[in-house]
Amino acid sequence: MTSTPKMTTTDDLDLVLTNIDENLQTSISRLEAFLKIPSISTDPAYKSDCRTAAQWLVDQLSDLGFDSSLRDTPGHPMVVAHYIVNDSTNADGKHVPHILFYGHYDVQPPEPLEEWNSPPFEPVRVTGEDGIERIFARGAADDKGQLLTFIEAVRAMINASFIQSLNMTLLFEGEEESGSPSLDAFLAENKDELSYDVALVCDTNMWDAETPAITTRLRGLVHEEVIINGPAIDLHSGLYGGAAINPIRVLTKILGDMHNENGTITIEGFYDGVDDLPPETVEQWQRLEGAAKKLLSDVNLSEPAGEKEHSILEQVWSRPTADVNGIWGGYIGAGSKTVIPAKASAKISFRLVSKQDPAKILQGFRDFVTKRLPADCTATFMSEGCFSPALEISQDNQYLKQAAGALEQEFGKAPVMMGCGGSIPIVGAFKDVLGMDSILVGFGLSDDAIHSPNEKYDINSFHKGIRSWARIIATLGA
Amino acid sequence: MTSTPKMTTTDDLDLVLTNIDENLQTSISRLEAFLKIPSISTDPAYKSDCRTAAQWLVDQLSDLGFDSSLRDTPGHPMVVAHYIVNDSTNADGKHVPHILFYGHYDVQPPEPLEEWNSPPFEPVRVTGEDGIERIFARGAADDKGQLLTFIEAVRAMINASFIQSLNMTLLFEGEEESGSPSLDAFLAENKDELSYDVALVCDTNMWDAETPAITTRLRGLVHEEVIINGPAIDLHSGLYGGAAINPIRVLTKILGDMHNENGTITIEGFYDGVDDLPPETVEQWQRLEGAAKKLLSDVNLSEPAGEKEHSILEQVWSRPTADVNGIWGGYIGAGSKTVIPAKASAKISFRLVSKQDPAKILQGFRDFVTKRLPADCTATFMSEGCFSPALEISQDNQYLKQAAGALEQEFGKAPVMMGCGGSIPIVGAFKDVLGMDSILVGFGLSDDAIHSPNEKYDINSFHKGIRSWARIIATLGA
Repeated sequence: MTSTPKMTTTDDLDLVLTNIDENLQTSISRLEAFLKIPSISTDPAYKSDCRTAAQWLVDQLSDLGFDSSLRDTPGHPMVVAHYIVNDSTNADGKHVPHILFYGHYDVQPPEPLEEWNSPPFEPVRVTGEDGIERIFARGAADDKGQLLTFIEAVRAMINASFIQSLNMTLLFEGEEESGSPSLDAFLAENKDELSYDVALVCDTNMWDAETPAITTRLRGLVHEEVIINGPAIDLHSGLYGGAAINPIRVLTKILGDMHNENGTITIEGFYDGVDDLPPETVEQWQRLEGAAKKLLSDVNLSEPAGEKEHSILEQVWSRPTADVNGIWGGYIGAGSKTVIPAKASAKISFRLVSKQDPAKILQGFRDFVTKRLPADCTATFMSEGCFSPALEISQDNQYLKQAAGALEQEFGKAPVMMGCGGSIPIVGAFKDVLGMDSILVGFGLSDDAIHSPNEKYDINSFHKGIRSWARIIATLGA
Repeated sequence: MTSTPKMTTTDDLDLVLTNIDENLQTSISRLEAFLKIPSISTDPAYKSDCRTAAQWLVDQLSDLGFDSSLRDTPGHPMVVAHYIVNDSTNADGKHVPHILFYGHYDVQPPEPLEEWNSPPFEPVRVTGEDGIERIFARGAADDKGQLLTFIEAVRAMINASFIQSLNMTLLFEGEEESGSPSLDAFLAENKDELSYDVALVCDTNMWDAETPAITTRLRGLVHEEVIINGPAIDLHSGLYGGAAINPIRVLTKILGDMHNENGTITIEGFYDGVDDLPPETVEQWQRLEGAAKKLLSDVNLSEPAGEKEHSILEQVWSRPTADVNGIWGGYIGAGSKTVIPAKASAKISFRLVSKQDPAKILQGFRDFVTKRLPADCTATFMSEGCFSPALEISQDNQYLKQAAGALEQEFGKAPVMMGCGGSIPIVGAFKDVLGMDSILVGFGLSDDAIHSPNEKYDINSFHKGIRSWARIIATLGA
């Protein structure tokens, strides 16, 4: 679909925003309809519901004039929808940006069901004692409510004939909550159809209910599993205890040595490639330290446990980590058993930042372990090959700057340039497979209870989210 | 039953030994009959079989002239049988010793059944390629074969009218393999009927097939379980990793610090009460070090892992230990999960020697942990109250010396005064409840596969065991 671009004005945008405000209840009704579809991707029993959710999006976008289609994959289908207003340059010879918007229509399983105050797929709106209205349902925030902020913004702009100098492709995935098994192949097979100037992803949080945020740093991730092998068989700790090396003793010694008393990781070369934070970011984050302390106090912690010379936000956003995610060995049932086990195991993951090299980190850990093995012990390493380097979006990126300006207009304050301690695999896939940077703008809040019972999305998040996207689309297409 | 003691002579004993040799096949037949009874104490399905085994013993002993009875307990019955030849002093005014012999008629469950070469309760005799004849069945060594060596010795002596200046009480338990829940109460209730000069226990090993042994040292045992508690809930290691304390990190650090690089345990006061070994014992054990190395090499170990300045046998027999028997925390399923768990747990046991105080060891460990807890972490301790101090029989004990002499006559070499790294609860119960020392003489071998599939007892162990007891009984009653 091609049409003639119009010049846009601030008045036009005001009209769109008014339209969004006036139609909010209708937008919420559409969200409710979407939330009623139990599109649980991980459970085969809900396979047809996933397809129903995908088709629901196809239909919504077709109605808006998108060239919209459901695309089969070995798993749940993708939705791809194009809205092409112009060639890649307009009449003035100016480049017309083409953005790729990403969201996911699948949701986490709702269990444990008995902990929900209302059925997870029967959305309810509740105004709390704090006067804040929220919609409760599985997927309300993650990611149906969030992705719909974008669609509703686009709807308002199209309805107001506010056609931008902006081409849009929307991609919705149905397997995000089950590890995105079909995603990379789909991106690779449809590379030409999906590679554009920049990706917009709506699956992250605001800083708080009043402060917008753009997530510009994602830590990388390396998974590792190690087994320390000792005696040929499990031994009786009475008969052998003392003389027989105990693999749990070896494993605890090695893992216990991985941090020093300052919280610094002691693996040789571990900090190679870790950049210092730009001074302006250090300063912005320092101003947020009070709120960061709440992140800890919410889970009964008072002291940051990482490198002493770095702030809480640096520890979770811009500093690398080594965490043991699981450990097991010997007898772990009820009561006691006097066993010296033949082996002991641990799962370890490393969060990476800046230019840390995942392969080098993995090798560094393996060397660290191997060097510390006593006589008669061996180590077996079993990395799942799940490597991702850190991703950072430069604060000089033009789309980032434009999105930040639009958010500041909507909220009356500049967005926080947040880090995200976790990885968002889609961002790596867009970078690696499609060669695109991603701008992560989202309106979730830390108390949304995503992946938990009683997931909710604030009506204010939904409303401000729609308005924000309208402003961002207007800016990008200006 | 009272009868007139006779003076015994070496000729009389030779007659008894010849009688034992000539009747060996009949003795083995009785063992086979006993082994066919599946007296598995831990499984309620075999309750009546346990009673059948107890009754079998009662009948055997009644036939020999014992005052023999089956005694009910809340669990499986005890067998108590008396053979009283005299008052406590004989005609010459000399003290007539009264010994208590102990064994257990219950057996371990035979599972995994598919690993047995023949059905566990259908004893078979097999002569191996090494020319050694063995009897295979569950309980062959532990403890039916062993306890029957004593009964068959007594049978031969009674049949030969070799009546000693020795009173005997035999006690057979049916719950040894399931934790002896009824034993302490039974001993306490029947204290007067069961308290005598010394206990003889036949449930231990020889040093090797040619060398007898008396077990004179039993290490004590303290069990402990510790939970390190950190964040209020399991956390996402991406969102919190770095700033949130990881209880696994804390637990591994603490447990990893429990031994230094010399294998010495670093808990304050841990070695209080640990005696040096008598020089003659050091010397005897040093001569056995070659064989001790085999103990390790049998399970693919080459280097003793305990205190560097002590030999292998010292490490397992006369030095205390701290072993982690189980550790668990976080995600231990397949694949990876980026979790910082709210807690991490370990089961630890301490083997004690000499005069180490179990309560003090436990408190020392708790202080060790508590002192090392970082901010925001707490420790929960859950000892099962399973405390036993070490037990050592003085090498000056007259009964020990007599038994040692008898064994030397039978084997042509002095018995090894062994330690046992594990605990044998009956010995503590005899000491604590009845005030008796125990002499532990047994004829098992380390390859008997007790508690494992294809348990066996060498016919030679059975035969030499019967002959040895005849010599010991003759000596004690001389």
